[in-house]
Amino acid sequence: MLLKKINEITIIGPGLIGSSLGLALKEKGISKKIVGLDKSKSNLNDAIKNRSIDEQRTKLDERISNSEIIFICTPVSQIEPLVQKIVPLITDKKTIITDVGSVKKCFSQQTIKMIKGKCKLIPGHPIAGTEFSGAKNAKPDLFKKKWCILTPLTKNDNSLSVVKKIWEAIGMNVSTMTIDEHDKIMSITSHLPHLIAFTIVGTAFGIDFKRKRDLINFSAGGFKDFTRIGSSDPKMWTDIFIKNKKHLLKTLENFLKDINKIKKLIVDDEVNKIFSYLKRNKKIRKSIVQLSNLKRN
Amino acid sequence: MLLKKINEITIIGPGLIGSSLGLALKEKGISKKIVGLDKSKSNLNDAIKNRSIDEQRTKLDERISNSEIIFICTPVSQIEPLVQKIVPLITDKKTIITDVGSVKKCFSQQTIKMIKGKCKLIPGHPIAGTEFSGAKNAKPDLFKKKWCILTPLTKNDNSLSVVKKIWEAIGMNVSTMTIDEHDKIMSITSHLPHLIAFTIVGTAFGIDFKRKRDLINFSAGGFKDFTRIGSSDPKMWTDIFIKNKKHLLKTLENFLKDINKIKKLIVDDEVNKIFSYLKRNKKIRKSIVQLSNLKRN
Repeated sequence: MLLKKINEITIIGPGLIGSSLGLALKEKGISKKIVGLDKSKSNLNDAIKNRSIDEQRTKLDERISNSEIIFICTPVSQIEPLVQKIVPLITDKKTIITDVGSVKKCFSQQTIKMIKGKCKLIPGHPIAGTEFSGAKNAKPDLFKKKWCILTPLTKNDNSLSVVKKIWEAIGMNVSTMTIDEHDKIMSITSHLPHLIAFTIVGTAFGIDFKRKRDLINFSAGGFKDFTRIGSSDPKMWTDIFIKNKKHLLKTLENFLKDINKIKKLIVDDEVNKIFSYLKRNKKIRKSIVQLSNLKRN
Repeated sequence: MLLKKINEITIIGPGLIGSSLGLALKEKGISKKIVGLDKSKSNLNDAIKNRSIDEQRTKLDERISNSEIIFICTPVSQIEPLVQKIVPLITDKKTIITDVGSVKKCFSQQTIKMIKGKCKLIPGHPIAGTEFSGAKNAKPDLFKKKWCILTPLTKNDNSLSVVKKIWEAIGMNVSTMTIDEHDKIMSITSHLPHLIAFTIVGTAFGIDFKRKRDLINFSAGGFKDFTRIGSSDPKMWTDIFIKNKKHLLKTLENFLKDINKIKKLIVDDEVNKIFSYLKRNKKIRKSIVQLSNLKRN
């Protein structure tokens, strides 16, 4: 089934992700009209300027009912409150609300009940982005060949198929899984690495140095990647750490256990055991690379 | 003062760094002859094949006295034992022994005494490399625009100036500092990031998953950089962790203190404090980038 042309899409929060989405939708001619909604006028201006949206709004009102699909592209903490404000404004049951939040356990049972029979909700997470933010950094190919995870509340729904086709149309591989599976995987592949990266930048600069400039000059050996990740948007990441608290803290606990193990090996000069440990992880990495070269089923 | 043409250089351990050095020296015509010395015949064959060395040897003997400069490019733990074997073979006091080890506190007082009056020792560390190893991955431009740190035991020595000029001739910026300064900086910018990266790969795969393949498919959000760093040579890194134990454990301690602080903030839902913490580190990162854009003095 092909994706039929959509009359209007609203993107709430056309920042890096939202505005890149607008650009990609335009490139593929997926929607006749794209509305951008944001509290920040300057961001809306950027989104108008790069032509990722056709119309800008700073107020959420009944006009949103003209959109067939609403993409919420705000920081995670704002998604649920927005859904609660949007639902009473919707007049067509087929209207789809979807989002791009990095944590998928962001809807309470109350909100899910509220939606039932009023409209469709398809939680989503395109795994794409850079350390930059805002519409001014948007690019239409941000999503190409990346993965998008959808965590539908019910299976085999037509709205799921529409959202899936939109992400596929702009170049993404789409995978569906449960909210819990998503949040657990992300706590490892993204949330813990970010927490570590944010922390290590602080640790490095808390240490007394004659010339802090040396730290960056000599950072080719690993620190540079860490500081890049650790410079992502603080508001967005505060929300993620709080919202995915359950899985993140569990994953962090496992990591701390592991790093304390290797720390003890270093303290005790256990050369052979350290070597085996590092070798094992190199092997794991190799198997990851091999896996990722296979087509995912 | 220009660098005068050298008659013979020996590279002990022409792996990724050593063989890349050979290629760069050739490109600039710095030495008439380059000898490669290694226990691994297959690596020596790779180094001959890529023309980074002119002659291969598997045995360290009196022939080494024909070389004006000896670069030791082995894992850190082998550097000092090698120096102890080389010194008795040397016949010219002007002969320079230098190395590329990532930890500079690798010579005991006994070794330093042994060298005195017999030859010159200039400890060095070109901060360059990839996650690959061996001569087969060598490339002549590995060092270009990167930093090399020299930690001379005495100042204003002609041998220091020669080693400095060689690294500069193949494109490096050279900085001199004390052994302690070097090892402290590296514990932060390189050794701790590697320790974390090695650990997190293990943590990720220790966690029970239905589909481990998902971990890499969804790794665009940070994990990929970590696994890349965490797949570096296990022998090399075992040596580094052990040899730089003093600084590494201190830096790790600071990091663990910091990550436990942010962990507590997450446990306590301290949204504002987490935000301030992340924002501060983003600011620090920005100042790093600005600093690194300035020319180092």
